[in-house]
Amino acid sequence: MGSEEQAMKKLIGDTAAVVTDALVGMEAALPQLRVDHENRVVLRATPKDAGKVALVSGGGSGHEPLHGGYVGYGMLDAACAGEVFTSPTPDQVLAATSAVDRGAGVLHIVKNYTGDVMNFEMAAELAEAEVASVLVHDDVAVEDSLYTAGRRGVGLTVLLEKIVGAAAEEGAPLDEVVRIAEAVSAQGRSMGMALTSCTVPAAGKPTFDLPDDEMEIGIGIHGEPGRRRVKVAPAPEIAEMLVDPILHDFDAAGGPVIAMLNGMGGSPLLELYLMYGEVAKLLEKAGVRVARTLVGDYITSLDMAGCSLTLLRADDEMLRLWDAPVETPGLRWGR
Amino acid sequence: MGSEEQAMKKLIGDTAAVVTDALVGMEAALPQLRVDHENRVVLRATPKDAGKVALVSGGGSGHEPLHGGYVGYGMLDAACAGEVFTSPTPDQVLAATSAVDRGAGVLHIVKNYTGDVMNFEMAAELAEAEVASVLVHDDVAVEDSLYTAGRRGVGLTVLLEKIVGAAAEEGAPLDEVVRIAEAVSAQGRSMGMALTSCTVPAAGKPTFDLPDDEMEIGIGIHGEPGRRRVKVAPAPEIAEMLVDPILHDFDAAGGPVIAMLNGMGGSPLLELYLMYGEVAKLLEKAGVRVARTLVGDYITSLDMAGCSLTLLRADDEMLRLWDAPVETPGLRWGR
Repeated sequence: MGSEEQAMKKLIGDTAAVVTDALVGMEAALPQLRVDHENRVVLRATPKDAGKVALVSGGGSGHEPLHGGYVGYGMLDAACAGEVFTSPTPDQVLAATSAVDRGAGVLHIVKNYTGDVMNFEMAAELAEAEVASVLVHDDVAVEDSLYTAGRRGVGLTVLLEKIVGAAAEEGAPLDEVVRIAEAVSAQGRSMGMALTSCTVPAAGKPTFDLPDDEMEIGIGIHGEPGRRRVKVAPAPEIAEMLVDPILHDFDAAGGPVIAMLNGMGGSPLLELYLMYGEVAKLLEKAGVRVARTLVGDYITSLDMAGCSLTLLRADDEMLRLWDAPVETPGLRWGR
Repeated sequence: MGSEEQAMKKLIGDTAAVVTDALVGMEAALPQLRVDHENRVVLRATPKDAGKVALVSGGGSGHEPLHGGYVGYGMLDAACAGEVFTSPTPDQVLAATSAVDRGAGVLHIVKNYTGDVMNFEMAAELAEAEVASVLVHDDVAVEDSLYTAGRRGVGLTVLLEKIVGAAAEEGAPLDEVVRIAEAVSAQGRSMGMALTSCTVPAAGKPTFDLPDDEMEIGIGIHGEPGRRRVKVAPAPEIAEMLVDPILHDFDAAGGPVIAMLNGMGGSPLLELYLMYGEVAKLLEKAGVRVARTLVGDYITSLDMAGCSLTLLRADDEMLRLWDAPVETPGLRWGR
């Protein structure tokens, strides 16, 4: 490894093998998972029962625990790990789809990025299983972006995988699973911000330059540009910059929401709790009733410092499925 | 907030109120917890049954999820949150001890730092409850340090709180709980490293200077000096620098161990999985059988990039208690 890579200050070996090496460690650490190393697909060690709909997601690596960390009882059946910030190939998605099909169809959960959409579509066409697909496009920051036609898919993916995973686990047929997935996709919104850039191992330098006294509002999870750069501000002002665009985009007053205050990877949990306190005050003032909360690193951007907020307007069915047991490395409760 | 604090790039408001503000957010996010804001003590919303031993820990803030995130069924009854990297006061510990005593005695779990030891001792003397205490001093990096006589208490604290918490939950009497706590304390070793410094909010600048091409081996969780500084190296070499000192310090061959590869806060999960893969290879080569594994951010140093390894030689009793149900924000399974 050359001195240039070393200066990156990352816990890595060969920069070209970061994803491969991480999957080796993941499998060693998590006996409840199995990794198809050739196709770079994370699977449950024990497949779900025959006759149940299977869920496949995936995307570029670098967003851990998403997606591999959400494989397990009550969530995904398989996750395809692309290179860092790079869509998985159609071959990977096809391998995952074939591996998990239990005869009741497979749902593809796809974040809205052009490469992901294309490659999941191609795999769906080639698959022998019956495949349906749901698109996540919850980021209110920008309408079109560097890698997207339409809105980017970000934090809502975590909530959708949890809720729809519970429905599939209960034995809901494919058309029901699709209906619930579409409902979640329609009812969720997100907004993110970054204090620092991230550094992709293969690039060896920060993805973008951000002056010492500025932050980026509306950041994408790959460091792609957001809405605007502003001077670094205290937490209460940052909270407004996340809450306002979401509440401007949809009316969340009254009805219960599931709220996720997500860390981008480089911000400590102490700060995330603090930020959630500020967000909670604003939501209360706006008359938004928070029924369930997640605070932590759930969909990250490598070592980026910053956070994002996701709100899902949840009906009774979604809340019930949210509360259902889940047993994955990244999300776990109740069983 | 002045421009100097703003340049810190943290999700905070008033630098003097970071811990207070974070506790507000923590309580808002986690209905299963209750916060005594005056004393800055995190408590279970529903106290454990009368007649069971209660567990109190705490220390400086900045290590989240430790300790507040380990309050809940199967682990702690209360955690005292000191200022960032500062011992909680005797008053805080006394308030926590009185609040959780259920008539069967209280165990104080104390990381070995001079201030913590002194303040927990003072509270124990003042408490009306019967109090016992266990000291965690697992860091093999240095024998005495900036804030310590003897070894520093680090990652083993998480494992001890889990195992001893399960024993208390099962109704073990105080002397039994102490016996198990002492056994865990005697059988665990840790070693850490840092790629970057952390920045304490009130200080506004990095705790120490680390050149762009160097890392610190044997770092403390407050950024206090370790064993030596070396050029940044690839993950397999870093893994050796963590595994070798531990295995040099005690013989872990054969007998099963619980292994924790812990992130310091600023290193993404992708890298932690990768590091664990390297550690697992070395342990296998050394004949150490890993029975259980944790990989993630469990005891952090604010935004420090780096990791630590903890190994606990676990007997059958410890493994059984490890597997027992736990339901805390930071560690959760099986119920």
